[in-house]
Amino acid sequence: MNDSGAIFLPKGFSFSAVTAGIKASAKPDLALILAEGGAKGAALFTKNLMVAAPVEVGRASLRKSQGNVRAVIVNSGNANCATGRAGIAACKEVCGELARLIKAEPGEVFPSSTGIIGVPLPAEKITAKLPPLTQSAGNSGDHFRQFANAILTTDTRSKIASIPLRKGRAAITGVAKGSGMIHPQLATMLVYILTDVSASPSELRSLLRDACADTFNAISVDGDTSTNDTVLLLASGASGVSLRTIKREFERALRSVCQSLAEQIVADGEGVQHVIRLRIEAAKSRAEALQIARAISHSLLVKTAWAGADPNWGRILAAIGRSEVRVNPAKVSIRIGEQVVCRGSVGCAFDEKLAHHELSQPESKITVRLGKGRTSLDFLTTDLTADYVRINADYST
Amino acid sequence: MNDSGAIFLPKGFSFSAVTAGIKASAKPDLALILAEGGAKGAALFTKNLMVAAPVEVGRASLRKSQGNVRAVIVNSGNANCATGRAGIAACKEVCGELARLIKAEPGEVFPSSTGIIGVPLPAEKITAKLPPLTQSAGNSGDHFRQFANAILTTDTRSKIASIPLRKGRAAITGVAKGSGMIHPQLATMLVYILTDVSASPSELRSLLRDACADTFNAISVDGDTSTNDTVLLLASGASGVSLRTIKREFERALRSVCQSLAEQIVADGEGVQHVIRLRIEAAKSRAEALQIARAISHSLLVKTAWAGADPNWGRILAAIGRSEVRVNPAKVSIRIGEQVVCRGSVGCAFDEKLAHHELSQPESKITVRLGKGRTSLDFLTTDLTADYVRINADYST
Repeated sequence: MNDSGAIFLPKGFSFSAVTAGIKASAKPDLALILAEGGAKGAALFTKNLMVAAPVEVGRASLRKSQGNVRAVIVNSGNANCATGRAGIAACKEVCGELARLIKAEPGEVFPSSTGIIGVPLPAEKITAKLPPLTQSAGNSGDHFRQFANAILTTDTRSKIASIPLRKGRAAITGVAKGSGMIHPQLATMLVYILTDVSASPSELRSLLRDACADTFNAISVDGDTSTNDTVLLLASGASGVSLRTIKREFERALRSVCQSLAEQIVADGEGVQHVIRLRIEAAKSRAEALQIARAISHSLLVKTAWAGADPNWGRILAAIGRSEVRVNPAKVSIRIGEQVVCRGSVGCAFDEKLAHHELSQPESKITVRLGKGRTSLDFLTTDLTADYVRINADYST
Repeated sequence: MNDSGAIFLPKGFSFSAVTAGIKASAKPDLALILAEGGAKGAALFTKNLMVAAPVEVGRASLRKSQGNVRAVIVNSGNANCATGRAGIAACKEVCGELARLIKAEPGEVFPSSTGIIGVPLPAEKITAKLPPLTQSAGNSGDHFRQFANAILTTDTRSKIASIPLRKGRAAITGVAKGSGMIHPQLATMLVYILTDVSASPSELRSLLRDACADTFNAISVDGDTSTNDTVLLLASGASGVSLRTIKREFERALRSVCQSLAEQIVADGEGVQHVIRLRIEAAKSRAEALQIARAISHSLLVKTAWAGADPNWGRILAAIGRSEVRVNPAKVSIRIGEQVVCRGSVGCAFDEKLAHHELSQPESKITVRLGKGRTSLDFLTTDLTADYVRINADYST
């Protein structure tokens, strides 16, 4: 299922990556997915109002091509965001040049960028590398891993999830990057999910939306929603298996792939030492459960307490209280692991050493019960460590 | 005006402080203001739904006594929050015992608590110290400084602002505590403002609300709204000067005292190295300017960039984009100091070294222009340093 596990590559796609010199580190920073016979695509994008040029261009291209995709071109090291008309032009130049090389329409090339905001994209560095990039594409696991590696920025490891479908006749495989600015709203950083079943763009869109709601939309590392968040689902149809014949299996597999990638992103969050599985129970609606989960996971005092494995439930309660969700304090209880630490917003006697020990593990579970209704939500978040500050305070522009 | 400056003590009040053993550090943790001849009071409280016992009791007391206040009793080291009925009972026990000692009604004693959430308040430790506390009260500057010192928690210094009125015939003097959990909504941590002009509770309430809106409600250290926030304004009338005869002067002085205390709180924020004067210009309304200022000042990526004196305006833009205020990116510009670094959401050529130098100062100015309307807002916030994480990650419960 993950990076170390087996990869089941859907038919109809090939991959490559090169170093184009966008990253100062000289690490690979330009990556390509080719769908030689074409693929149907659906995408979800960031809800941030300040959208990057590739998000604007990609959204328009999918519309124009009616969901037909022949290639995905991704650069890391530069977000091509807050770059104005020049940024749009640079993005179109890259897509146009790639389309010419692979004999496709410009609208069939889907672009992504990730990295620093506000620096002009060096399109000429990218277009110069497009010929070797297209020529070296292949469909082995190694080619795929090179792609997964070249899209990373502050990530410390690549993020892959792969599931065979119809007993191996088809497959669904996802790859993601994301480590900071993780507080997705409808989509997370960059995620590409490939399958070789055949499906229409509208079928893909509806399945993707459902799968993201409980996965990528239920995680937070630092409460900052990116300007470049993109989740793209591509179906080549090359397996000969039709989505309609395996809809349930596909739905489950898509959700698993999204969930696995979401968990990998959180676990690789900048400076993260503890992952928290936050469960909101007995809420009136999913929306209010999400609002409370986000208030908790956005509280610096809660996140720093988690960094110290401190069972300081009072800070969780204070975060619930300022979430703007109407709750009755007399009905709110909190569990750390299996221990109830606060009932009716009043502290209980509990084994503090045990709670501290549980919060010291790489992963722990905290449950908030609101006593309002019947809706539950599982949310994945992290502590906030001095390392996060160090990673993000470096004078780097 | 501040701690090192002269203190103009309003007539009609006396002060004292002792160590009651609530703080583990054995530092002073119990403080008293006596209004021997009585005072009229008005208070603003936290908007957090999870309110501490003293906030509930204090609000009810002011209502019952019709704004008559004879004493203010403050303990630090314990917030008496999330302590249920026992917490309310402990708070009332303290107020009742003090009322008995000074021959007042229990409703004329105004209580405050600050410190850890969820730990029962040791009322007996407090009541045992009430006789020496009341007996040692005095009206010298030293007595006042002892009060200012005993209400602190993680603060590194006391916060005082003092202005003479009517050429010294009367005065207004404020004292505050607050260092973390600073993201006030209607009030900040604990603030006491004393004057010896004569005024009614309703006059005081309306003046206090106006003064807080632009001062305590326009600051943020860590985005966490406290459960105990309280601002209390007391007028003894002992100067013989009536508020009505100096309304303009009093309004200005009250606003200055609130602004000075708000600035002192921000500058003493946990782990703070850089204070940022954030100005939002050309907004359509104060509410939307505040929403944008809070989104920026709540962004971990923005705050960590400030810690590194990094002029990374792209992160500010991303925070504006996720603020949920409708803005037209083409009209948004950002200045660091006097330099425009981004115009129409696109980066400008600017002197990065100069911007870095400016952000390296203890205080710097960042201006966001929205291009929507005519409203401006000044907001005071801080960077986020590894020290903040260290202060709050200690396993301390």
